Amino acid sequence: MLPHLTFVLGGASSGKSAFAEKLVFQSEADRVYIATSQVFDDEMRKKVDAHLTMRGDGWHTIECPLDAVTALHGIKSGEVVLFDCATMWLTNHMLADHNIDAQTDALLSALAACKGRVVMVSNEVGMGIVPDNKLARQFRDAQGKLNQRLAAASDLAVFVVAGLPMTLKGQLP
Amino acid sequence: MLPHLTFVLGGASSGKSAFAEKLVFQSEADRVYIATSQVFDDEMRKKVDAHLTMRGDGWHTIECPLDAVTALHGIKSGEVVLFDCATMWLTNHMLADHNIDAQTDALLSALAACKGRVVMVSNEVGMGIVPDNKLARQFRDAQGKLNQRLAAASDLAVFVVAGLPMTLKGQLP
Amino acid sequence: MLPHLTFVLGGASSGKSAFAEKLVFQSEADRVYIATSQVFDDEMRKKVDAHLTMRGDGWHTIECPLDAVTALHGIKSGEVVLFDCATMWLTNHMLADHNIDAQTDALLSALAACKGRVVMVSNEVGMGIVPDNKLARQFRDAQGKLNQRLAAASDLAVFVVAGLPMTLKGQLP
Repeated sequence: MLPHLTFVLGGASSGKSAFAEKLVFQSEADRVYIATSQVFDDEMRKKVDAHLTMRGDGWHTIECPLDAVTALHGIKSGEVVLFDCATMWLTNHMLADHNIDAQTDALLSALAACKGRVVMVSNEVGMGIVPDNKLARQFRDAQGKLNQRLAAASDLAVFVVAGLPMTLKGQLP
Repeated sequence: MLPHLTFVLGGASSGKSAFAEKLVFQSEADRVYIATSQVFDDEMRKKVDAHLTMRGDGWHTIECPLDAVTALHGIKSGEVVLFDCATMWLTNHMLADHNIDAQTDALLSALAACKGRVVMVSNEVGMGIVPDNKLARQFRDAQGKLNQRLAAASDLAVFVVAGLPMTLKGQLP
Repeated sequence: MLPHLTFVLGGASSGKSAFAEKLVFQSEADRVYIATSQVFDDEMRKKVDAHLTMRGDGWHTIECPLDAVTALHGIKSGEVVLFDCATMWLTNHMLADHNIDAQTDALLSALAACKGRVVMVSNEVGMGIVPDNKLARQFRDAQGKLNQRLAAASDLAVFVVAGLPMTLKGQLP
Protein backbone atom coordinates (compact mmCIF):
# COMPACT_ATOMS: atom_id res chain seq x y z
CA MET A 1 0.00 0.00 0.00
CA LEU A 2 1.18 3.50 -0.85
CA PRO A 3 2.17 5.79 2.03
CA HIS A 4 0.74 9.27 2.56
CA LEU A 5 3.13 11.07 0.19
CA THR A 6 5.18 9.44 -2.57
CA PHE A 7 7.67 11.52 -4.54
CA VAL A 8 8.61 10.37 -8.05
CA LEU A 9 11.50 12.28 -9.61
CA GLY A 10 13.00 11.80 -13.06
CA GLY A 11 14.41 13.46 -16.14
CA ALA A 12 12.47 14.34 -19.28
CA SER A 13 11.00 11.27 -20.99
CA SER A 14 12.37 9.07 -18.24
CA GLY A 15 9.12 7.17 -17.73
CA LYS A 16 8.44 8.90 -14.40
CA SER A 17 4.74 9.56 -15.11
CA ALA A 18 4.15 6.00 -16.34
CA PHE A 19 5.89 4.68 -13.24
CA ALA A 20 3.79 6.91 -10.98
CA GLU A 21 0.61 5.75 -12.71
CA LYS A 22 1.58 2.13 -12.18
CA LEU A 23 1.99 2.85 -8.47
CA VAL A 24 -1.45 4.43 -8.33
CA PHE A 25 -3.02 1.58 -10.32
CA GLN A 26 -1.70 -0.98 -7.85
CA SER A 27 -3.76 0.76 -5.20
CA GLU A 28 -7.42 -0.11 -4.60
CA ALA A 29 -8.38 3.52 -4.03
CA ASP A 30 -10.40 5.88 -6.24
CA ARG A 31 -8.04 7.63 -8.64
CA VAL A 32 -7.82 11.41 -8.95
CA TYR A 33 -5.56 13.11 -11.46
CA ILE A 34 -4.38 16.66 -10.72
CA ALA A 35 -3.36 18.04 -14.11
CA THR A 36 -1.11 21.08 -13.98
CA SER A 37 -0.46 21.71 -17.68
CA GLN A 38 -1.49 24.89 -19.42
CA VAL A 39 -1.81 24.20 -23.11
CA PHE A 40 -0.33 27.09 -25.13
CA ASP A 41 0.55 25.37 -28.40
CA ASP A 42 0.36 22.21 -30.51
CA GLU A 43 3.53 20.67 -29.08
CA MET A 44 2.01 20.90 -25.58
CA ARG A 45 -1.36 19.63 -26.78
CA LYS A 46 0.28 16.49 -28.20
CA LYS A 47 2.09 15.78 -24.94
CA VAL A 48 -1.07 16.24 -22.88
CA ASP A 49 -3.08 14.02 -25.24
CA ALA A 50 -0.43 11.31 -25.16
CA HIS A 51 -0.53 11.28 -21.34
CA LEU A 52 -4.34 11.17 -21.40
CA THR A 53 -4.32 8.14 -23.69
CA MET A 54 -1.67 6.43 -21.57
CA ARG A 55 -3.69 6.87 -18.35
CA GLY A 56 -6.88 5.42 -19.78
CA ASP A 57 -10.30 5.55 -18.08
CA GLY A 58 -11.16 5.44 -14.42
CA TRP A 59 -9.69 8.75 -13.33
CA HIS A 60 -11.40 11.81 -11.94
CA THR A 61 -9.38 14.67 -13.46
CA ILE A 62 -8.97 18.10 -11.88
CA GLU A 63 -7.43 20.75 -14.16
CA CYS A 64 -5.35 22.79 -11.84
CA PRO A 65 -2.51 24.90 -13.21
CA LEU A 66 -2.14 27.09 -10.12
CA ASP A 67 -4.47 26.44 -7.17
CA ALA A 68 -3.35 22.98 -6.08
CA VAL A 69 -4.16 23.87 -2.47
CA THR A 70 -7.92 23.99 -3.06
CA ALA A 71 -7.76 20.82 -5.14
CA LEU A 72 -5.89 18.92 -2.41
CA HIS A 73 -8.29 20.28 0.22
CA GLY A 74 -11.19 18.64 -1.67
CA ILE A 75 -9.60 15.15 -1.76
CA LYS A 76 -11.47 12.53 0.28
CA SER A 77 -10.07 9.79 2.44
CA GLY A 78 -9.86 6.65 0.33
CA GLU A 79 -8.81 8.58 -2.78
CA VAL A 80 -5.32 8.46 -4.25
CA VAL A 81 -4.05 11.44 -6.20
CA LEU A 82 -1.58 11.51 -9.07
CA PHE A 83 -0.18 15.06 -9.06
CA ASP A 84 1.55 15.52 -12.47
CA CYS A 85 3.62 17.54 -12.01
CA ALA A 86 5.45 19.81 -9.57
CA THR A 87 7.56 21.19 -12.43
CA MET A 88 4.56 22.49 -14.34
CA TRP A 89 3.03 23.82 -11.10
CA LEU A 90 6.29 25.70 -10.42
CA THR A 91 6.49 27.00 -14.00
CA ASN A 92 2.94 28.33 -13.82
CA HIS A 93 3.56 30.14 -10.54
CA MET A 94 6.85 31.60 -11.80
CA LEU A 95 5.12 32.85 -14.98
CA ALA A 96 2.43 34.40 -12.78
CA ASP A 97 5.19 36.12 -10.80
CA HIS A 98 4.01 34.61 -7.50
CA ASN A 99 6.15 34.30 -4.39
CA ILE A 100 7.53 30.77 -4.76
CA ASP A 101 8.52 30.26 -1.13
CA ALA A 102 5.02 31.19 0.05
CA GLN A 103 3.39 29.00 -2.59
CA THR A 104 5.64 26.09 -1.66
CA ASP A 105 4.81 26.48 2.04
CA ALA A 106 1.10 26.40 1.16
CA LEU A 107 1.55 23.38 -1.13
CA LEU A 108 3.44 21.41 1.50
CA SER A 109 0.83 22.22 4.18
CA ALA A 110 -1.94 21.10 1.83
CA LEU A 111 -0.07 17.86 1.07
CA ALA A 112 0.42 17.16 4.78
CA ALA A 113 -3.25 17.87 5.53
CA CYS A 114 -4.62 15.98 2.51
CA LYS A 115 -7.12 13.26 3.48
CA GLY A 116 -6.09 10.97 0.64
CA ARG A 117 -2.72 9.70 -0.44
CA VAL A 118 -0.69 11.58 -3.06
CA VAL A 119 1.89 10.54 -5.65
CA MET A 120 3.77 13.68 -6.71
CA VAL A 121 5.74 13.67 -9.97
CA SER A 122 8.60 16.10 -10.57
CA ASN A 123 11.51 16.74 -12.94
CA GLU A 124 15.21 16.63 -12.24
CA VAL A 125 16.60 19.63 -14.18
CA GLY A 126 19.91 20.40 -12.44
CA MET A 127 22.34 17.89 -13.99
CA GLY A 128 23.20 19.73 -17.21
CA ILE A 129 25.56 22.59 -17.91
CA VAL A 130 24.74 26.00 -16.32
CA PRO A 131 22.12 27.66 -18.57
CA ASP A 132 23.03 30.88 -20.41
CA ASN A 133 20.04 32.91 -19.31
CA LYS A 134 19.21 34.09 -15.82
CA LEU A 135 15.56 33.00 -15.83
CA ALA A 136 16.59 29.42 -16.64
CA ARG A 137 19.13 29.52 -13.80
CA GLN A 138 16.47 30.83 -11.40
CA PHE A 139 14.04 28.14 -12.49
CA ARG A 140 16.69 25.47 -12.07
CA ASP A 141 17.44 26.64 -8.53
CA ALA A 142 13.74 26.91 -7.61
CA GLN A 143 13.04 23.42 -8.98
CA GLY A 144 15.99 21.96 -7.10
CA LYS A 145 14.82 23.51 -3.83
CA LEU A 146 11.23 22.39 -4.40
CA ASN A 147 12.42 18.85 -5.10
CA GLN A 148 14.43 18.85 -1.88
CA ARG A 149 11.39 19.95 0.14
CA LEU A 150 9.06 17.44 -1.51
CA ALA A 151 11.60 14.64 -1.01
CA ALA A 152 12.05 15.63 2.65
CA ALA A 153 8.27 15.64 3.21
CA SER A 154 7.71 12.31 1.45
CA ASP A 155 7.49 8.87 3.00
CA LEU A 156 8.68 7.22 -0.20
CA ALA A 157 10.96 8.88 -2.77
CA VAL A 158 11.90 7.27 -6.07
CA PHE A 159 14.36 8.41 -8.75
CA VAL A 160 13.28 7.02 -12.13
CA VAL A 161 16.05 6.45 -14.71
CA ALA A 162 15.21 4.95 -18.11
CA GLY A 163 11.88 3.79 -16.70
CA LEU A 164 13.48 1.92 -13.80
CA PRO A 165 13.14 3.03 -10.17
CA MET A 166 15.95 3.73 -7.72
CA THR A 167 14.65 4.14 -4.20
CA LEU A 168 15.92 7.28 -2.48
CA LYS A 169 13.85 6.87 0.68
CA GLY A 170 11.28 4.43 2.09
CA GLN A 171 10.28 1.21 0.39
CA LEU A 172 8.33 0.44 -2.76
CA PRO A 173 5.04 -1.41 -2.07
CA MET B 1 29.11 -14.04 -17.19
CA LEU B 2 27.25 -11.30 -19.07
CA PRO B 3 23.58 -11.86 -19.87
CA HIS B 4 22.11 -11.55 -23.36
CA LEU B 5 21.59 -7.77 -23.26
CA THR B 6 23.33 -5.35 -20.92
CA PHE B 7 22.35 -1.67 -20.93
CA VAL B 8 24.91 0.89 -19.75
CA LEU B 9 23.53 4.41 -19.34
CA GLY B 10 25.42 7.50 -18.25
CA GLY B 11 25.96 11.20 -18.78
CA ALA B 12 28.63 12.78 -20.98
CA SER B 13 32.16 11.89 -19.84
CA SER B 14 30.72 9.74 -17.07
CA GLY B 15 32.99 6.79 -17.79
CA LYS B 16 30.13 4.74 -19.26
CA SER B 17 32.14 3.49 -22.28
CA ALA B 18 35.13 2.55 -20.16
CA PHE B 19 32.83 0.74 -17.76
CA ALA B 20 31.13 -1.11 -20.65
CA GLU B 21 34.53 -2.10 -22.06
CA LYS B 22 35.58 -3.47 -18.68
CA LEU B 23 32.44 -5.63 -18.64
CA VAL B 24 33.25 -6.97 -22.12
CA PHE B 25 36.90 -7.60 -21.21
CA GLN B 26 35.88 -9.73 -18.24
CA SER B 27 34.17 -12.04 -20.69
CA GLU B 28 36.06 -14.85 -22.46
CA ALA B 29 34.22 -14.27 -25.74
CA ASP B 30 35.52 -12.79 -29.00
CA ARG B 31 35.06 -9.03 -28.92
CA VAL B 32 33.18 -7.08 -31.57
CA TYR B 33 32.89 -3.31 -31.53
CA ILE B 34 29.93 -1.70 -33.29
CA ALA B 35 31.04 1.87 -33.91
CA THR B 36 28.22 4.31 -34.65
CA SER B 37 30.10 7.60 -34.97
CA GLN B 38 30.15 9.64 -38.15
CA VAL B 39 33.24 11.83 -38.13
CA PHE B 40 32.36 15.30 -39.43
CA ASP B 41 35.08 17.42 -37.83
CA ASP B 42 38.30 17.49 -35.79
CA GLU B 43 36.53 17.57 -32.42
CA MET B 44 34.76 14.30 -33.32
CA ARG B 45 37.95 12.77 -34.75
CA LYS B 46 39.74 13.39 -31.44
CA LYS B 47 36.95 11.71 -29.45
CA VAL B 48 36.89 8.68 -31.74
CA ASP B 49 40.69 8.34 -31.63
CA ALA B 50 40.71 8.59 -27.85
CA HIS B 51 38.15 5.78 -27.59
CA LEU B 52 40.15 3.69 -30.06
CA THR B 53 43.31 4.07 -27.98
CA MET B 54 41.42 3.27 -24.79
CA ARG B 55 39.98 0.05 -26.23
CA GLY B 56 43.34 -1.31 -27.39
CA ASP B 57 43.80 -4.36 -29.64
CA GLY B 58 41.77 -7.50 -29.85
CA TRP B 59 38.54 -6.08 -31.21
CA HIS B 60 36.83 -6.72 -34.51
CA THR B 61 35.36 -3.32 -35.39
CA ILE B 62 32.26 -2.79 -37.53
CA GLU B 63 31.67 0.82 -38.65
CA CYS B 64 27.96 1.15 -38.57
CA PRO B 65 26.40 4.61 -38.34
CA LEU B 66 22.92 3.49 -39.46
CA ASP B 67 22.38 -0.19 -40.30
CA ALA B 68 22.90 -1.82 -36.93
CA VAL B 69 20.34 -4.49 -37.83
CA THR B 70 22.56 -6.09 -40.47
CA ALA B 71 25.59 -5.84 -38.20
CA LEU B 72 23.77 -7.56 -35.32
CA HIS B 73 22.44 -10.21 -37.71
CA GLY B 74 26.04 -11.15 -38.59
CA ILE B 75 27.16 -11.68 -34.97
CA LYS B 76 28.05 -15.28 -34.11
CA SER B 77 27.30 -17.22 -30.98
CA GLY B 78 30.30 -16.90 -28.69
CA GLU B 79 30.91 -13.27 -29.65
CA VAL B 80 30.25 -10.34 -27.36
CA VAL B 81 29.39 -6.97 -28.86
CA LEU B 82 30.09 -3.52 -27.50
CA PHE B 83 27.53 -1.24 -29.18
CA ASP B 84 28.74 2.34 -28.63
CA CYS B 85 26.36 4.01 -28.71
CA ALA B 86 22.57 4.21 -28.95
CA THR B 87 22.78 8.02 -28.79
CA MET B 88 24.91 8.29 -31.92
CA TRP B 89 22.73 5.68 -33.66
CA LEU B 90 19.65 7.76 -32.82
CA THR B 91 21.33 11.00 -33.93
CA ASN B 92 22.29 9.48 -37.28
CA HIS B 93 18.75 8.23 -37.94
CA MET B 94 17.23 11.57 -36.93
CA LEU B 95 19.62 13.44 -39.24
CA ALA B 96 18.64 11.02 -42.04
CA ASP B 97 14.99 11.83 -41.28
CA HIS B 98 14.09 8.18 -40.70
CA ASN B 99 11.04 6.98 -38.79
CA ILE B 100 12.46 6.52 -35.30
CA ASP B 101 9.73 4.23 -33.96
CA ALA B 102 10.17 1.84 -36.89
CA GLN B 103 13.96 1.92 -36.58
CA THR B 104 13.72 1.27 -32.85
CA ASP B 105 11.38 -1.69 -33.40
CA ALA B 106 13.88 -3.14 -35.88
CA LEU B 107 16.83 -2.52 -33.54
CA LEU B 108 15.09 -4.20 -30.61
CA SER B 109 14.13 -7.23 -32.74
CA ALA B 110 17.72 -7.53 -33.95
CA LEU B 111 19.02 -7.31 -30.37
CA ALA B 112 16.58 -10.01 -29.23
CA ALA B 113 17.54 -12.29 -32.16
CA CYS B 114 21.30 -11.64 -31.91
CA LYS B 115 23.29 -14.89 -31.50
CA GLY B 116 25.95 -13.21 -29.34
CA ARG B 117 25.67 -11.11 -26.23
CA VAL B 118 25.47 -7.33 -26.46
CA VAL B 119 26.51 -4.47 -24.17
CA MET B 120 24.67 -1.35 -25.32
CA VAL B 121 25.92 2.08 -24.25
CA SER B 122 23.63 5.12 -24.19
CA ASN B 123 23.48 8.69 -22.90
CA GLU B 124 21.21 10.17 -20.28
CA VAL B 125 20.27 13.59 -21.74
CA GLY B 126 17.03 14.50 -19.94
CA MET B 127 18.19 15.90 -16.59
CA GLY B 128 19.02 19.45 -17.64
CA ILE B 129 16.82 22.46 -18.22
CA VAL B 130 14.35 22.31 -21.16
CA PRO B 131 16.35 23.19 -24.32
CA ASP B 132 15.45 26.37 -26.23
CA ASN B 133 15.13 24.81 -29.65
CA LYS B 134 12.52 22.33 -30.80
CA LEU B 135 14.93 19.86 -32.44
CA ALA B 136 16.85 19.49 -29.18
CA ARG B 137 13.57 18.88 -27.31
CA GLN B 138 12.56 16.25 -29.87
CA PHE B 139 15.92 14.55 -29.60
CA ARG B 140 15.70 14.58 -25.82
CA ASP B 141 12.28 12.94 -25.92
CA ALA B 142 13.35 10.37 -28.50
CA GLN B 143 16.47 9.49 -26.51
CA GLY B 144 14.47 9.15 -23.31
CA LYS B 145 11.98 6.80 -24.96
CA LEU B 146 14.75 4.77 -26.60
CA ASN B 147 16.52 4.42 -23.24
CA GLN B 148 13.28 3.22 -21.64
CA ARG B 149 12.84 0.56 -24.32
CA LEU B 150 16.46 -0.61 -24.15
CA ALA B 151 16.31 -0.74 -20.35
CA ALA B 152 13.05 -2.71 -20.48
CA ALA B 153 14.54 -5.20 -22.97
CA SER B 154 17.79 -5.63 -21.04
CA ASP B 155 18.63 -8.33 -18.50
CA LEU B 156 21.10 -6.05 -16.74
CA ALA B 157 20.88 -2.25 -16.65
CA VAL B 158 23.52 -0.03 -15.09
CA PHE B 159 23.55 3.73 -14.50
CA VAL B 160 27.14 5.00 -14.46
CA VAL B 161 27.83 8.13 -12.38
CA ALA B 162 31.39 9.47 -12.10
CA GLY B 163 32.68 6.14 -13.36
CA LEU B 164 30.87 4.16 -10.68
CA PRO B 165 27.95 1.81 -11.44
CA MET B 166 24.49 1.90 -9.90
CA THR B 167 22.50 -1.19 -10.79
CA LEU B 168 19.02 -0.42 -12.10
CA LYS B 169 18.10 -4.00 -12.95
CA GLY B 170 19.70 -7.44 -12.76
CA GLN B 171 23.05 -8.13 -11.18
CA LEU B 172 26.61 -7.26 -12.17
CA PRO B 173 28.76 -10.32 -12.95
CA MET C 1 33.75 8.50 11.30
CA LEU C 2 34.54 9.97 7.91
CA PRO C 3 37.22 8.29 5.80
CA HIS C 4 40.21 10.12 4.31
CA LEU C 5 38.41 11.35 1.18
CA THR C 6 34.65 11.65 0.73
CA PHE C 7 33.24 12.67 -2.66
CA VAL C 8 29.79 14.30 -2.73
CA LEU C 9 28.36 14.72 -6.23
CA GLY C 10 25.03 16.28 -7.18
CA GLY C 11 23.19 18.52 -9.60
CA ALA C 12 22.54 22.24 -9.16
CA SER C 13 20.44 22.97 -6.05
CA SER C 14 20.39 19.29 -5.20
CA GLY C 15 21.30 19.82 -1.56
CA LYS C 16 24.82 18.44 -2.06
CA SER C 17 26.55 21.20 -0.05
CA ALA C 18 24.07 20.92 2.81
CA PHE C 19 24.54 17.16 2.81
CA ALA C 20 28.34 17.53 2.81
CA GLU C 21 28.13 20.00 5.72
CA LYS C 22 26.00 17.57 7.69
CA LEU C 23 28.67 14.92 7.20
CA VAL C 24 31.36 17.29 8.45
CA PHE C 25 29.23 18.39 11.43
CA GLN C 26 28.81 14.80 12.56
CA SER C 27 32.57 14.67 12.94
CA GLU C 28 34.33 15.78 16.15
CA ALA C 29 37.19 17.37 14.21
CA ASP C 30 38.02 21.05 13.72
CA ARG C 31 36.21 22.32 10.65
CA VAL C 32 37.97 24.01 7.75
CA TYR C 33 36.10 25.40 4.78
CA ILE C 34 37.97 25.73 1.46
CA ALA C 35 35.95 28.29 -0.50
CA THR C 36 36.60 28.30 -4.24
CA SER C 37 34.14 30.95 -5.43
CA GLN C 38 35.26 34.12 -7.16
CA VAL C 39 32.57 36.74 -6.73
CA PHE C 40 32.08 38.65 -9.99
CA ASP C 41 28.50 39.88 -9.62
CA ASP C 42 25.45 40.22 -7.37
CA GLU C 43 23.97 36.84 -8.33
CA MET C 44 27.18 35.13 -7.17
CA ARG C 45 27.39 37.28 -4.03
CA LYS C 46 23.88 36.15 -3.00
CA LYS C 47 24.77 32.49 -3.48
CA VAL C 48 27.98 32.82 -1.48
CA ASP C 49 26.18 34.69 1.33
CA ALA C 50 23.42 32.08 1.45
CA HIS C 51 26.01 29.30 1.84
CA LEU C 52 27.81 31.30 4.53
CA THR C 53 24.59 31.73 6.52
CA MET C 54 23.76 28.04 6.11
CA ARG C 55 27.14 26.91 7.43
CA GLY C 56 26.97 29.03 10.57
CA ASP C 57 29.89 29.63 12.96
CA GLY C 58 32.71 27.33 13.91
CA TRP C 59 34.51 27.14 10.61
CA HIS C 60 37.98 28.29 9.70
CA THR C 61 37.53 29.54 6.12
CA ILE C 62 40.28 29.60 3.48
CA GLU C 63 39.45 31.61 0.36
CA CYS C 64 41.09 29.65 -2.38
CA PRO C 65 39.90 30.07 -5.96
CA LEU C 66 43.00 28.49 -7.56
CA ASP C 67 45.76 27.26 -5.25
CA ALA C 68 44.05 24.43 -3.43
CA VAL C 69 47.34 22.53 -3.24
CA THR C 70 48.89 24.99 -0.78
CA ALA C 71 45.67 25.12 1.24
CA LEU C 72 45.51 21.33 1.52
CA HIS C 73 49.20 21.20 2.41
CA GLY C 74 48.48 23.42 5.44
CA ILE C 75 45.74 21.21 6.85
CA LYS C 76 46.58 19.58 10.19
CA SER C 77 45.82 16.09 11.38
CA GLY C 78 42.55 16.22 13.32
CA GLU C 79 41.02 18.78 10.97
CA VAL C 80 38.24 17.99 8.53
CA VAL C 81 37.94 20.02 5.35
CA LEU C 82 34.84 20.87 3.37
CA PHE C 83 36.08 21.63 -0.16
CA ASP C 84 33.22 23.42 -1.95
CA CYS C 85 33.61 22.87 -4.79
CA ALA C 86 35.56 21.04 -7.49
CA THR C 87 33.34 22.63 -10.16
CA MET C 88 34.30 26.17 -9.18
CA TRP C 89 37.95 25.13 -8.83
CA LEU C 90 37.82 23.70 -12.38
CA THR C 91 36.05 26.79 -13.73
CA ASN C 92 38.67 29.09 -12.23
CA HIS C 93 41.54 27.09 -13.72
CA MET C 94 39.86 26.93 -17.13
CA LEU C 95 39.28 30.70 -17.09
CA ALA C 96 42.98 31.15 -16.17
CA ASP C 97 43.86 28.94 -19.16
CA HIS C 98 45.80 26.48 -17.01
CA ASN C 99 46.65 22.92 -18.01
CA ILE C 100 43.77 21.00 -16.45
CA ASP C 101 45.41 17.56 -16.48
CA ALA C 102 48.46 18.91 -14.65
CA GLN C 103 46.30 20.83 -12.16
CA THR C 104 44.21 17.72 -11.52
CA ASP C 105 47.30 15.58 -10.94
CA ALA C 106 48.52 18.13 -8.40
CA LEU C 107 45.11 18.34 -6.71
CA LEU C 108 44.85 14.56 -6.39
CA SER C 109 48.37 14.29 -4.97
CA ALA C 110 47.57 17.01 -2.43
CA LEU C 111 44.35 15.24 -1.44
CA ALA C 112 46.20 11.95 -0.99
CA ALA C 113 48.92 13.62 1.10
CA CYS C 114 46.54 15.77 3.16
CA LYS C 115 46.96 15.22 6.92
CA GLY C 116 43.28 15.84 7.64
CA ARG C 117 40.16 14.33 6.15
CA VAL C 118 38.43 15.99 3.19
CA VAL C 119 34.85 16.12 1.96
CA MET C 120 34.93 17.23 -1.69
CA VAL C 121 31.75 18.60 -3.29
CA SER C 122 31.26 18.57 -7.06
CA ASN C 123 28.58 19.06 -9.72
CA GLU C 124 27.14 16.54 -12.12
CA VAL C 125 26.80 18.52 -15.39
CA GLY C 126 26.73 15.83 -18.10
CA MET C 127 23.10 14.65 -18.09
CA GLY C 128 21.53 17.34 -20.26
CA ILE C 129 21.47 17.82 -23.99
CA VAL C 130 24.81 18.53 -25.77
CA PRO C 131 25.52 22.27 -25.33
CA ASP C 132 25.63 24.49 -28.43
CA ASN C 133 28.97 26.11 -27.75
CA LYS C 134 32.35 24.46 -27.75
CA LEU C 135 33.57 25.92 -24.45
CA ALA C 136 30.55 24.47 -22.64
CA ARG C 137 31.24 21.07 -24.23
CA GLN C 138 34.89 21.25 -23.17
CA PHE C 139 33.90 22.19 -19.64
CA ARG C 140 31.39 19.36 -19.50
CA ASP C 141 34.02 16.85 -20.59
CA ALA C 142 36.63 18.22 -18.18
CA GLN C 143 34.14 18.14 -15.28
CA GLY C 144 33.13 14.58 -16.11
CA LYS C 145 36.74 13.42 -16.17
CA LEU C 146 37.55 15.26 -12.94
CA ASN C 147 34.53 13.67 -11.25
CA GLN C 148 35.67 10.23 -12.39
CA ARG C 149 39.14 10.79 -10.93
CA LEU C 150 37.83 12.18 -7.63
CA ALA C 151 35.36 9.30 -7.33
CA ALA C 152 38.11 6.77 -8.06
CA ALA C 153 40.38 8.34 -5.43
CA SER C 154 37.65 8.55 -2.78
CA ASP C 155 36.90 6.06 -0.02
CA LEU C 156 33.26 7.12 0.10
CA ALA C 157 31.32 8.53 -2.87
CA VAL C 158 27.75 9.79 -2.62
CA PHE C 159 25.37 10.96 -5.34
CA VAL C 160 22.88 13.45 -3.87
CA VAL C 161 19.46 13.64 -5.57
CA ALA C 162 16.78 15.95 -4.16
CA GLY C 163 18.74 16.19 -0.92
CA LEU C 164 18.85 12.42 -0.46
CA PRO C 165 22.05 10.37 -0.74
CA MET C 166 22.68 7.39 -2.99
CA THR C 167 25.91 5.65 -2.10
CA LEU C 168 28.15 5.00 -5.11
CA LYS C 169 31.08 3.60 -3.14
CA GLY C 170 31.96 2.87 0.50
CA GLN C 171 29.56 3.31 3.38
CA LEU C 172 27.99 6.34 5.03
CA PRO C 173 29.06 6.78 8.66
